[in-house]
Amino acid sequence: MTHASPQRWKLTIEYDGGPFSGWQRQADGILSVQQVIEDAIARLGETAPRLHVAGRTDAGVHARGQVAHVDLERPMTADELQGALNFHVRPHPVVILKVEAVDETFHARFGAVMRHYLYRINNRRAPLAIDAGHVWHLPARLDVGAMRAGAQHLLGKHDFSTFRAAACQAKGPIRSLTRFDITEDGDEISCHVSAPSFLHHQVRNMVGTLAEVGRGRWQPDEVKHALEAKDRAAGGATAPADGLYFMKVEYGSAQQVFADTDELHDDE
Amino acid sequence: MTHASPQRWKLTIEYDGGPFSGWQRQADGILSVQQVIEDAIARLGETAPRLHVAGRTDAGVHARGQVAHVDLERPMTADELQGALNFHVRPHPVVILKVEAVDETFHARFGAVMRHYLYRINNRRAPLAIDAGHVWHLPARLDVGAMRAGAQHLLGKHDFSTFRAAACQAKGPIRSLTRFDITEDGDEISCHVSAPSFLHHQVRNMVGTLAEVGRGRWQPDEVKHALEAKDRAAGGATAPADGLYFMKVEYGSAQQVFADTDELHDDE
Repeated sequence: MTHASPQRWKLTIEYDGGPFSGWQRQADGILSVQQVIEDAIARLGETAPRLHVAGRTDAGVHARGQVAHVDLERPMTADELQGALNFHVRPHPVVILKVEAVDETFHARFGAVMRHYLYRINNRRAPLAIDAGHVWHLPARLDVGAMRAGAQHLLGKHDFSTFRAAACQAKGPIRSLTRFDITEDGDEISCHVSAPSFLHHQVRNMVGTLAEVGRGRWQPDEVKHALEAKDRAAGGATAPADGLYFMKVEYGSAQQVFADTDELHDDE
Repeated sequence: MTHASPQRWKLTIEYDGGPFSGWQRQADGILSVQQVIEDAIARLGETAPRLHVAGRTDAGVHARGQVAHVDLERPMTADELQGALNFHVRPHPVVILKVEAVDETFHARFGAVMRHYLYRINNRRAPLAIDAGHVWHLPARLDVGAMRAGAQHLLGKHDFSTFRAAACQAKGPIRSLTRFDITEDGDEISCHVSAPSFLHHQVRNMVGTLAEVGRGRWQPDEVKHALEAKDRAAGGATAPADGLYFMKVEYGSAQQVFADTDELHDDE
């Protein structure tokens, strides 16, 4: 099997964000997930491979279903590529869950139409042994009903400036929040958050604000006032990276792609 | 508040088994969970504190609800003891979840009447990034229905010699298996296993044998034949420690305690 032109590959990726500076390759050589995978691809004989990713996660943020694409010259099967990459990324906590050949209209970042994050909170008094680094530990008892009421104010299309990091590179602050469900299982509180795209730190800033509601320091309605203030200073503190997981990306048809370039650029 | 005699304390404990040689203090100084907690207690001014534990877990086995007791001279409240221990066990992945004052008839090991273990299997093709060290990764597709059928043969009171490690220190091989439920959630298979007590490696040997059934190498009925052989050589391989969690212990009334000393000594 030979290709006249490069083959585009879609990679679905899991990683533990703990040891990494984040997804994006850093000029100063601090270890990033992108670097680990690009270095693994380079071992296959590819020159300067370049990954494009659905969600440029920050330092410490985990992924259970990150998606990236890369164009490779060398002909191979999806199984061969997956096996070789999972061999060469070792011993880093990065795994290629799935490899699919896609056509050149597929773009991991610009073609994504829905992104799903999970934010995990552990609400017990005692510190964490097994789950340390993988959930936000909040020992003070949280009122999950109040958090749910607060989250309702965030659903829909809004100017999310209150929940946007100063470093955010997106052109505008308008985003459409599709889902903010909060479930409880024993001591664990899970925030399921979905949108076509997010601003930088948007999920962590929303969760940090709802934690204030859960602790009883804010009333649920104050989330609405904070949102309307369009001012980062009006929001709660940024929740730590430990609890955040990039779970899944959905892709639309070719027609939908590039329809709304700013809102589809994810920066969480 | 002063005590004329020592106070007995019941400790409920979580730990990540990864870095430890197991629960039991080792003469050669290899790090054990017992040593970490006893050393923390010694920092409170107690001389040679001695912990008695419900389940002497092996190297690499985790706990979400281990129970131990200790007698301490120094008067203090449960909250003070919990706070001080959680301070002094750091930075090890050990946490005291709960501290309760109990009377001297309580015995963490001999008073336990039911022990609950969880064994986690991940049944996806790709290796593990986030869950490495915390589940058994079995990439070949497992038939969970067949595993359930095999597990049924293990329920009840039997001679479990087939599933008993050579190093087992229990007096006899008779145990009563109360529960062996297998649930599925996506790629994860969870074995919920309960008994008054277990032989050394009993859960891991039963899971290793059922994995042979899941892979289709054994028929479910062969689990019954293996059990009846009363011979370790007739069982499957020992499943790795990574997937095993000591979840919970139940204690009976004083009347029940010491009723069946061998069967209540846990050695998993």
